[in-house]
Amino acid sequence: MNFLDEIKNLKEQIKSKDKFDINFNFDNIVISGMGGSGIVGNIFQEYYTSIPVISIGDYGIPGFVNEKTLFIVVSYSGNTEETLSNVEDAKKKGAHVRAITSGGKLATIVEKSIIIPSGIQPRSALGYMLMPLFNTFAPIDDAIVSQTYGILDDMDKNHSDIKSEAFKIYENSSIPIIYGSKPFKSVAYRWKTQFNENAKTFAFYSYFPELNHNDTMPLKSAYRRDEYLFYAFESDNARINQRIGITEEITGEQFTVVKSPSQDYFSKLFYLIHYADYLTYELALVRNVDPTDVSTIEELKKKLA
Amino acid sequence: MNFLDEIKNLKEQIKSKDKFDINFNFDNIVISGMGGSGIVGNIFQEYYTSIPVISIGDYGIPGFVNEKTLFIVVSYSGNTEETLSNVEDAKKKGAHVRAITSGGKLATIVEKSIIIPSGIQPRSALGYMLMPLFNTFAPIDDAIVSQTYGILDDMDKNHSDIKSEAFKIYENSSIPIIYGSKPFKSVAYRWKTQFNENAKTFAFYSYFPELNHNDTMPLKSAYRRDEYLFYAFESDNARINQRIGITEEITGEQFTVVKSPSQDYFSKLFYLIHYADYLTYELALVRNVDPTDVSTIEELKKKLA
Repeated sequence: MNFLDEIKNLKEQIKSKDKFDINFNFDNIVISGMGGSGIVGNIFQEYYTSIPVISIGDYGIPGFVNEKTLFIVVSYSGNTEETLSNVEDAKKKGAHVRAITSGGKLATIVEKSIIIPSGIQPRSALGYMLMPLFNTFAPIDDAIVSQTYGILDDMDKNHSDIKSEAFKIYENSSIPIIYGSKPFKSVAYRWKTQFNENAKTFAFYSYFPELNHNDTMPLKSAYRRDEYLFYAFESDNARINQRIGITEEITGEQFTVVKSPSQDYFSKLFYLIHYADYLTYELALVRNVDPTDVSTIEELKKKLA
Repeated sequence: MNFLDEIKNLKEQIKSKDKFDINFNFDNIVISGMGGSGIVGNIFQEYYTSIPVISIGDYGIPGFVNEKTLFIVVSYSGNTEETLSNVEDAKKKGAHVRAITSGGKLATIVEKSIIIPSGIQPRSALGYMLMPLFNTFAPIDDAIVSQTYGILDDMDKNHSDIKSEAFKIYENSSIPIIYGSKPFKSVAYRWKTQFNENAKTFAFYSYFPELNHNDTMPLKSAYRRDEYLFYAFESDNARINQRIGITEEITGEQFTVVKSPSQDYFSKLFYLIHYADYLTYELALVRNVDPTDVSTIEELKKKLA
C-alpha cells in the first residue's frame, strides 16, 4: 500500500468491530503507548471519563497500578521499548494486561491481544488502534460511523483547499501552531506529530483556554511572530469560540479556524484527524520530502539497541 | 515587592507548613487550575502516583468525579473563570472540595481553603501553592528543604552564567524549545510559560522519550532549525541521558543540558524551576520588556467578562 492509500484507508478502519472481552471489575484504566500509538490513549482519555483513565507514554508505570487496574498497551509494531517495559511492570503489580498491536514481541507476551493488520505506517493505523477502545467502552452508533465514512470519503475525493494551504505553508516556510480545545486537545497534538513525521517540519500545539494564560503574551509582542501560522479548531463551547475571536482581536494574529461539516464527537474527531493527514502529506510533496521516511527515528532505535 | 524580590522569595515559600486536614477516605484526587496556578497540579500529578491524580485545566470536570473524589482547586487570584466553574460542578457531584488561593471569590465559596499571601504575581507564588500538596500527601524532610533553600539562595546571589545565556537568546532572537523528562515534564512546560509571560517570547516543550517518536525528524531536516535553541534536563534515568546524547549525534543539533547540583527530587525540582525564573527574567530585561506586564491577558479577561 502506498502512503496515499494508507491515508485513504482510514475510512475503512473506523468500521472495525474489534473489541476486548472484559469479564472482571476494574477501578481504573491505564493506556500505554508512544508516538503514533500513544496518541490513541490520549484521544480516548479525553473522551471517556466515567472512570479514571490515565494515558502514559514513558518508562515506568504509576504507583497505583494493581489488580484492579485494566492496563492496555498500544504499540503498532509490538516492539516499542518503552511500552514493552511497561508490560513487565504492570504484570508484576497484578494488573489485567491487554494489548492492541499488529504483532512483534508484544503479541507473544500479552495473551489477550487484539491483532490489527500489519504492513502500514503506525501513524496510518490510528483507526485500527482506536476503534477497540470505543467498541469496548463507548460504542459508536452505526449511523454515525456511516456518516463519518462519507465525510472522510469526500475528503479523499477532493481536498484541493487543503493542498493550497500546504502550499502557503511551504511558500513562507511557516511553522504551524495548532490550538485545540476539549475534547480535541490530543488531536492538536496529532497534527503536530503528523507535521513532524510526514512533512519533517517543526510544529507546536496548545489549547484554549489554557493558552490565554501564557501564549497570549508572545502572540502580541514576540519576535519572529510572522514565521508562524496558526490553526484553531472551532468548538461546541461558545465560550471557547469567543476566546478564539477575542485572542485574534487583541493580539492582531489571524487563526485559520478549522470547522467540521458535522457536529457529533466521532465524525468531528476523524474529520480533524484526516484534515492533518492531507495537510502534512501535501506539505511533504511540495517540500519534496518522502512522507513515509522516518529513517532518523529508526537510526536512533538502532543506536539505542 | 518588585519582581526580582518575588523571584528571590521562592526559597522562603518552600518552608511553608500549610497543609490540608483530611479526615475522610477518597479514591482519587482531581486538581484544577489554569496557567501559573495550573502548573501546580501538573507537577504534583507527575510525582505522586499512589492513587490516581488527575490534573485539569479547562471548563468541565471528568465524569468519574463523585463523593469519593478529593477535588482541589488552585487559583492564586481566586477569580479564575474556568476554575470557579469547576467548583460548582464538583459540588454538584458531591466531591470534597478544597482550595489553595490568596483570596478572591474562591475563598468565599470554598470553606476549607488554604489562604496564601497575596500581592505577588501568580507565577511567583509557585512555592506557596505547591507546598500544601507535598505537606499533606508526601511530606518533604526538613534537611532536604534546607538543602534546597541553600541551592536557591546560591542562585539568588549569583546567576551570571544564566544571564549570559539570556543574552545569547536575545542576540539571535532564538525560540527556546525545552525537552523535559519524567518527573519534570511539567517543569519543561513551566519554562515555556515563564518565557511567554516574563520575556514575551514564544517557547515550546516536549519530553524524552516521546520526542524520539516525532520531533526527531524535523530536528534533522526541518527549515528554520537555526532559529531554535534547545534545552534538555539531565535525568536520573541513564536511558534518557543516552537518548539525549544519541539525538544530538544523529540530528546534529546541540542541546544545552541543564544539570542540578543535587539529585533528590525536591531540590532538583526547585533548581530547575528557579533556573527558568532567572533565564526569562534576564531575557525580559535585555529585550527591554517589563517582566511583570501581562496586560494582554488582563485585556482578554475584561473582554470576556
